[in-house]
Amino acid sequence: MIYFTTDYSAGAHPRVMEALLRTNEEHHNGYFEDAHCENAINLIKKRIGDDTVDVHLMVGGTITNTTAIAAWLKPYECVVSATTGHINVHETGAIEASGHKVLTVPEHEGKVLPEDVRKVCSEHDNEHMVKPGMLYISDSTELGTIYTKKELEELRKVCDEFGLILFLDGARLGSALTAEGNDLTFEDLPKLCDAFYIGGTKNGFLFGEAIVIVREDLKKNFRYMIKQRGGMFAKGRLIGVQFEEVFKDDLYLEMAAYTNEMAKLMRDGMKAKGIEFLAESPTNQLFPIFTVEKVAELQKKYVFQHQAWMDDGREAVRFVTSWLTKPEEVEELLADL
Amino acid sequence: MIYFTTDYSAGAHPRVMEALLRTNEEHHNGYFEDAHCENAINLIKKRIGDDTVDVHLMVGGTITNTTAIAAWLKPYECVVSATTGHINVHETGAIEASGHKVLTVPEHEGKVLPEDVRKVCSEHDNEHMVKPGMLYISDSTELGTIYTKKELEELRKVCDEFGLILFLDGARLGSALTAEGNDLTFEDLPKLCDAFYIGGTKNGFLFGEAIVIVREDLKKNFRYMIKQRGGMFAKGRLIGVQFEEVFKDDLYLEMAAYTNEMAKLMRDGMKAKGIEFLAESPTNQLFPIFTVEKVAELQKKYVFQHQAWMDDGREAVRFVTSWLTKPEEVEELLADL
Amino acid sequence: MIYFTTDYSAGAHPRVMEALLRTNEEHHNGYFEDAHCENAINLIKKRIGDDTVDVHLMVGGTITNTTAIAAWLKPYECVVSATTGHINVHETGAIEASGHKVLTVPEHEGKVLPEDVRKVCSEHDNEHMVKPGMLYISDSTELGTIYTKKELEELRKVCDEFGLILFLDGARLGSALTAEGNDLTFEDLPKLCDAFYIGGTKNGFLFGEAIVIVREDLKKNFRYMIKQRGGMFAKGRLIGVQFEEVFKDDLYLEMAAYTNEMAKLMRDGMKAKGIEFLAESPTNQLFPIFTVEKVAELQKKYVFQHQAWMDDGREAVRFVTSWLTKPEEVEELLADL
Amino acid sequence: MIYFTTDYSAGAHPRVMEALLRTNEEHHNGYFEDAHCENAINLIKKRIGDDTVDVHLMVGGTITNTTAIAAWLKPYECVVSATTGHINVHETGAIEASGHKVLTVPEHEGKVLPEDVRKVCSEHDNEHMVKPGMLYISDSTELGTIYTKKELEELRKVCDEFGLILFLDGARLGSALTAEGNDLTFEDLPKLCDAFYIGGTKNGFLFGEAIVIVREDLKKNFRYMIKQRGGMFAKGRLIGVQFEEVFKDDLYLEMAAYTNEMAKLMRDGMKAKGIEFLAESPTNQLFPIFTVEKVAELQKKYVFQHQAWMDDGREAVRFVTSWLTKPEEVEELLADL
Repeated sequence: MIYFTTDYSAGAHPRVMEALLRTNEEHHNGYFEDAHCENAINLIKKRIGDDTVDVHLMVGGTITNTTAIAAWLKPYECVVSATTGHINVHETGAIEASGHKVLTVPEHEGKVLPEDVRKVCSEHDNEHMVKPGMLYISDSTELGTIYTKKELEELRKVCDEFGLILFLDGARLGSALTAEGNDLTFEDLPKLCDAFYIGGTKNGFLFGEAIVIVREDLKKNFRYMIKQRGGMFAKGRLIGVQFEEVFKDDLYLEMAAYTNEMAKLMRDGMKAKGIEFLAESPTNQLFPIFTVEKVAELQKKYVFQHQAWMDDGREAVRFVTSWLTKPEEVEELLADL
Repeated sequence: MIYFTTDYSAGAHPRVMEALLRTNEEHHNGYFEDAHCENAINLIKKRIGDDTVDVHLMVGGTITNTTAIAAWLKPYECVVSATTGHINVHETGAIEASGHKVLTVPEHEGKVLPEDVRKVCSEHDNEHMVKPGMLYISDSTELGTIYTKKELEELRKVCDEFGLILFLDGARLGSALTAEGNDLTFEDLPKLCDAFYIGGTKNGFLFGEAIVIVREDLKKNFRYMIKQRGGMFAKGRLIGVQFEEVFKDDLYLEMAAYTNEMAKLMRDGMKAKGIEFLAESPTNQLFPIFTVEKVAELQKKYVFQHQAWMDDGREAVRFVTSWLTKPEEVEELLADL
Repeated sequence: MIYFTTDYSAGAHPRVMEALLRTNEEHHNGYFEDAHCENAINLIKKRIGDDTVDVHLMVGGTITNTTAIAAWLKPYECVVSATTGHINVHETGAIEASGHKVLTVPEHEGKVLPEDVRKVCSEHDNEHMVKPGMLYISDSTELGTIYTKKELEELRKVCDEFGLILFLDGARLGSALTAEGNDLTFEDLPKLCDAFYIGGTKNGFLFGEAIVIVREDLKKNFRYMIKQRGGMFAKGRLIGVQFEEVFKDDLYLEMAAYTNEMAKLMRDGMKAKGIEFLAESPTNQLFPIFTVEKVAELQKKYVFQHQAWMDDGREAVRFVTSWLTKPEEVEELLADL
Repeated sequence: MIYFTTDYSAGAHPRVMEALLRTNEEHHNGYFEDAHCENAINLIKKRIGDDTVDVHLMVGGTITNTTAIAAWLKPYECVVSATTGHINVHETGAIEASGHKVLTVPEHEGKVLPEDVRKVCSEHDNEHMVKPGMLYISDSTELGTIYTKKELEELRKVCDEFGLILFLDGARLGSALTAEGNDLTFEDLPKLCDAFYIGGTKNGFLFGEAIVIVREDLKKNFRYMIKQRGGMFAKGRLIGVQFEEVFKDDLYLEMAAYTNEMAKLMRDGMKAKGIEFLAESPTNQLFPIFTVEKVAELQKKYVFQHQAWMDDGREAVRFVTSWLTKPEEVEELLADL
């Protein structure tokens, strides 16, 4: 079988594995208080061009989202998200379990529009309703689309108007920053977001994310929250070693760029065959639409996931490329189409 | 420096690292739904001699405790724990953050006595007070001590009397089961506990624990809870691979036995020098008592942690051995004492 | 000024006040454990024709909803509600603060359609998403509309299909049961709902609601939940005395019928003048649509609330009648229109 | 039977009932936004000599405690309380259900000592443990004892040292402020506490408490919290009317003083007969110790509650006086002893 299921179906990039092996018999303090974590954090600060931020290493995406939202919202505040937002759909109510409503706005190919945020904030104006306290977006989104710098600036503006924290879920940030059409850089993020996270799990790590906290008042006692929410990893150094390795040069973005390249190969090939897509994704998640028969046929040889049913009975599916995807695997798929 | 800080200051046992490397480029489904996890779970069931249980692989200890407690207690129920219990002292209110009171009973060298449980349950008998719903114990305890089979049977009895779930935190279960004086076996645990977990992080893993759910009504929909609490690890296979490796033969207990052996060397040596201990620990955590001057002197060469101040001004400290501890490191310490 | 703001803008019906005065110097046990509460509960059981149910007296609506939902849902379960549902919009995230997502379905004049419930339940079918556990409806709804017996039976059916608890918020149950076009009776409710509450606050009480729990497994330890959620009223007898007074004969429905009569007078008068309505309400909440100028003019003499803006710039407002509304007040309003 | 069960076993003081009757047919905005609430709040501010505070009217004690604690603590913060504190023992885990640990210190006749607070705060000094964020005390305490001004000043000092909010539960504040030996005044409270509440339920009201928020940063958006926690009473005016009535002159303290007078009559009479007490209470709760036989005999004619078992097998019971207690009832009891 050939795998296009997810970008986390395999292990880690060889350099990441080597780094873990190389440091395996070192003794370190637990809980991210070791030299590798310190170094990793410094490399991240340098890479995003801001050494005033706080960076914390995290175990996974759901726990990063929950920890941040639980830490920063007051009990009566809610987080605004697209209906397709990961926190709204795919976290089994983790946000609500921490006490906060996810207030939805319509999605536009997975993205949030400033006017929708403005509308929902204007409507929630008294103490009988939740108070919007944060805007949650992801880049790339759940549909593989990305925000332009201008779009992010517009969202920043509406957040300032209503006093919302702007939090960007970067589970697939690498893929976003190296996508065709992207004009955002690592350096832009601390200027536009109050907090964001840099995803490792879906970009060549065994696991691990790094949350960057920009706004001063969000920094305080965040480690207490990490511990309480179950993210105070005993061997925190493991995440430190991985971030250190991929940020000591530009491996982080290189892995992502490679993944996008494989996706482009697939996308261009599919488009050339007249295949339609559910959304215009320039990143490593593609959502081609096939007939049910075609899907059944492809499943004999390829592993991929169902995404949605179209009104005409056809099926949108999801193909994802990763650091391990090989050009010949894509070529074989294209040949089979 | 020589490290006796914790049993999680280094990486993983070489065989564990090899297994991770060997399987690194395999593609698998995420979220513990892969062949390695399946195999690991079957090996665990076989090892504990009960294939009717449910086993789930977990990322870490705090998240295992919180997920289990949040899953199984009704909103008005509390968990009974020794004052020294990890969930009471060292989880930053994670249990309370999931809505449940930790109701304490006195600790006896870290252990819980049945009569104390009986007393507190008898006193909490009406709807103006929380209702005890679970007894939480750990083996080995936070002070390195262990439960005998008879003691565990007595606790089982009191749990049955008051309808309490008996949950055993096995973060250091390996060390307990291979300790001098221990008469409990892996096979006893599903007979005596409603649920327990087998700790990997503190016994030669990079990370990972396995929770075993025995009681039928506790099994349902546990994966929903894992996801909501942030433990639905994307590359779940990593934990599967580790458990598979150490349970395919008896490596799990062998690593623990080695650790205990190193501790015994240290303990016997210290006792021979007349050093006193805070608790009588037969496992890999030792709590010798030194003068402040002695502690300061040792800190120049050894890394270890503060535990408690004695009434006479002396200091109890904690020395922990691990799979990586070498006999010559212990000998050197003894020579320096 | 003439008040059509709400049905809770005035105090209680004279007979209710007399009952409170009459019993004021009696001594009773607190927390609903007195003779008046016992009698009230028996009268309610008799009135709904089911003495197998559990009835608990409650302080108010939000606390009744939160207590029930928190008591009955497992941590990963959500409650399904119309977008307009009180728990979704007007409880400041109280449900989410108890840990549960409110999963919305479209509203149809405030009502829920079975096919929408079926769709959302079918889509939420795995552990990465919340699990629907309850359907919340209100009768009359937030838009004054009511469910027919057939509609309620259809909802019961879909609840049985997906294992949902059917919970009916009866804050304005009196008005619903005495409305034109209603074919539901008190006796139908325990046959069709798993639980429901009978609202007092909005029907001539000082305050107080009565929750009726039909399904056996929902009954256990509900008083613990009442206490924990802040509803264990010290002088619980006050609510007992009120329910006792209005259920010792048919005052409960008589007050509601009177209120509906006043609303009908207003509605018929408005319709005769060609005034349009936001929803077709046969109960005591009316939502006429006026020009902004007309609203401004009416506000000089009448007190009422804004409801919504229409696309054409007109304003839907809310007029509510109560036990204290006088026919001449309605006549005066109609004359002024 | 003669009732000494609680101070909330009867209804309200005649003047309170009259005020409710007098205002019954007035129309008002709901949710404490009416003229009576406004007036009541102003009278309270005047009475405590501080018009910079925020005052909110509340439905009951548990809901006041939970709302305040949930509003003001960050998720990882805990509230420090005596082991006997109401929030620790008698609220069915309501505080924990809002996510916060109650961290206990030893009680001294129901009171908290500054040195115990200092100790527990010093020990909780890193992110693996909860962070003390509030000190909760009650005056009078659960054992009827009271704090002197000096004692309260000492607690204020330790709160300032560790950055704790000082919150005083005044469910029985009236009885405390009018007790023999008391040197605290209403005016002292906003100077020494960050927040406190003035209890009505146990001092001649039907129900209702008033929370006073002194510290600026605790004031913001408190009404959101009241709503979310179920305390946004529809007919909020009812509580406004009651506070208005008892604070328009000195009825609040007069009722409490009368209650204390009745208790003193009882206490002095009991002491004259050589009866011992569990605690030295100068307020309206007395805890005499009797043999089991004596208790059984008294129960034939008097209603009162069990408090605790003494080591010698005797029983401490609780006698409480209220605004309705009559001197001849106390005399009769004394004659029977």
